[in-house]
Amino acid sequence: MLTAKSGIKTLEKGSIVTPEGFLAAGMHTGVKRKRNDLGMIYCDVPASAAALYTQNVIQAAPLKVTKQSIAEEGKLQAVIVNSGNANACTGKQGEEDAYTMRHAAADVLSIPEHRVAVSSTGVIGLAMPMDRIIPNMKHLDLQMDQEAATAFNESILTTDATKKSTCRQTVIDDVVITMAGSAKGSGMIEPNMGTMLAFITTDAAIESDMLQLALKEVTDQTFNCITIDGDTSTNDMVLAMASGKAGNENLTPEHKDWDVFVEMLQQTCEDLAKMIARDGEGATKLIEVQVAGAADDQQAVQVAKTVVGSSLVKTAAYGADPNWGRIIAAIGRSGADVNAETIDASVGPIQLLENSQPLAYSETAASDYLQQDTIKLTVDLNAGDGVGKAWGCDLTYDYVRINASYRS
Amino acid sequence: MLTAKSGIKTLEKGSIVTPEGFLAAGMHTGVKRKRNDLGMIYCDVPASAAALYTQNVIQAAPLKVTKQSIAEEGKLQAVIVNSGNANACTGKQGEEDAYTMRHAAADVLSIPEHRVAVSSTGVIGLAMPMDRIIPNMKHLDLQMDQEAATAFNESILTTDATKKSTCRQTVIDDVVITMAGSAKGSGMIEPNMGTMLAFITTDAAIESDMLQLALKEVTDQTFNCITIDGDTSTNDMVLAMASGKAGNENLTPEHKDWDVFVEMLQQTCEDLAKMIARDGEGATKLIEVQVAGAADDQQAVQVAKTVVGSSLVKTAAYGADPNWGRIIAAIGRSGADVNAETIDASVGPIQLLENSQPLAYSETAASDYLQQDTIKLTVDLNAGDGVGKAWGCDLTYDYVRINASYRS
Repeated sequence: MLTAKSGIKTLEKGSIVTPEGFLAAGMHTGVKRKRNDLGMIYCDVPASAAALYTQNVIQAAPLKVTKQSIAEEGKLQAVIVNSGNANACTGKQGEEDAYTMRHAAADVLSIPEHRVAVSSTGVIGLAMPMDRIIPNMKHLDLQMDQEAATAFNESILTTDATKKSTCRQTVIDDVVITMAGSAKGSGMIEPNMGTMLAFITTDAAIESDMLQLALKEVTDQTFNCITIDGDTSTNDMVLAMASGKAGNENLTPEHKDWDVFVEMLQQTCEDLAKMIARDGEGATKLIEVQVAGAADDQQAVQVAKTVVGSSLVKTAAYGADPNWGRIIAAIGRSGADVNAETIDASVGPIQLLENSQPLAYSETAASDYLQQDTIKLTVDLNAGDGVGKAWGCDLTYDYVRINASYRS
Repeated sequence: MLTAKSGIKTLEKGSIVTPEGFLAAGMHTGVKRKRNDLGMIYCDVPASAAALYTQNVIQAAPLKVTKQSIAEEGKLQAVIVNSGNANACTGKQGEEDAYTMRHAAADVLSIPEHRVAVSSTGVIGLAMPMDRIIPNMKHLDLQMDQEAATAFNESILTTDATKKSTCRQTVIDDVVITMAGSAKGSGMIEPNMGTMLAFITTDAAIESDMLQLALKEVTDQTFNCITIDGDTSTNDMVLAMASGKAGNENLTPEHKDWDVFVEMLQQTCEDLAKMIARDGEGATKLIEVQVAGAADDQQAVQVAKTVVGSSLVKTAAYGADPNWGRIIAAIGRSGADVNAETIDASVGPIQLLENSQPLAYSETAASDYLQQDTIKLTVDLNAGDGVGKAWGCDLTYDYVRINASYRS
């Protein structure tokens, strides 16, 4: 029997419609050439909502609309998402278009406008193809089966190679709590910037301010710890909806199983974050950097992000080159408190550096390890108790090909 | 006749030995396979010296030794440089080796050890091949002709495609002042991090603290405004030596032509910085980003560096794609005070954006412009009087090839 004590279980076949109360749909309207480009998540009751947005000063129109919706009463019943056009840098018309999308979705669902969130991803600076999006909204076929979730998962992708979805269960207050997530990563219709979108559904009972608290905490340790190429989109959004249908007592930090809930949210977000990193443009492998011995956790994450974001580390990973000089140089420029004489570093199980000095190790074994599609680099700064992780991907010819091809 | 008023003249055939008092040499000792790998600049009088070093916490042994030399009395007579081995992360032995290089150079020249600077560039973490460097030092053939300067310029390169040198003259206090510089950029013997080295010679009379003041000021606007891949080497060094042989009055900020001197130093450093950027690993073109209308100059530089360092802007430049969405997104994440509604942007003479809205422009003309080997991107934030520039290069297949090839 699953209990909070026994932990959190992964549901291989679960999806964003597995938590009680959620339906989804996805369809092709012709904004993109082939794949689905319009999607919706719907909750049959008003769900507590929380969201985090890009830190880019330039923010796309849908973010403004979604913020307004959530500000109204902290509840959402639906999110309407399109891919193929980011509705960013589109001025007054873009803003009107985002409001029109919200209005049309609310109309189809017969719910108040402020219970609808709007999200877009794709090319920047082009007018939204409203003639494709609006008339098709009524054809979105909301269902609670796997097929509908898959159709939604596809509808949010741009040039992502894979759909990204995860689902977990645990027990809180003797009831089963389910949580799921869908995401898209760095990709594009035409070579333009990628956008990270993530949508999380759960049937846990939790007020929106508490959900926001938990989401902020885990986002800093998951989505904010991935880097593909250091560029931040104008459209990034992480949105969580909690239907409350599981019937547990409202979750707050005072609830005995608050930590279990946060842990489940953390695992969900980490799953999606790693899927996004692995599917970075042109990537052939996922790189995880684990840092220990930093002055504090924040500095550990800072070091991990600098290492995983280094173009030289990323190309060395692609070339399966255990080039620790690049790792140590990235650590040194990270801005964290680093003692130049006390750094240990390993690739997978093979330690390369001890106290900043090279050890005798088998280059062949280290290179063999780096051929794998998941690479772990571990660093110990031996300067404190801070720990942290970050995720990224290798830098390949395909990254250049994808981003240097002329838009057409 | 050349006067301070008439400005600063470029000497196409000048080199680091053109300023009075300087000699140079370069030779092949076998640290590198083919090209020169050991070089020296010598001044026949003690020269006022100033230097700036990498901001990486991990610093190579020669930097420590050079700092000690200059700290002694602010004077240098020689700098000994090797390429092929960075003498970084080489522990106690590396430190001893750097001191041994200094000692050997002082011995050959019959000058005090503290008048010798040491500089190294190349692979990290390998023991210095002292058996090649030390016995050959006495074979360095110091001369004051162009050939010797060229031999030196080659001796500091790693995988740079081109030698980098510049020379200028002006008149201060009715005497001709000459200034020259040599540099190397981002490259490597084996795929390891690149190092930026720059050596500047002048026959101007100026005390070392004033030279340091001027060097710091212009470095912040030149060398610190280039980015190849965002990685900072353990070995970066900019070193200036002033022989005083021109016979002008000592230059200080109170001297009527101080600004002319600083301008000449600025032009010298900017020349070298642009040469380094253009010769970035795998680069096919130089990108210059000019920012106006920032809250202050520092923020302008911050925006310029963020744009020129963006992998998406760099790949767009390679693909000759006037993809302004990437420019505006980089501006938005730069951390500078930016008004999302007031940004103008142009590629070369073609304006793409006004008040953050796309203008009607010819994509073909913009793409044609981006095919050139020098690209200017100009941005006006319309939010203040701050101006700044930064330089970088495109991101190409060759960058990945160079850095992903396994060391062998």
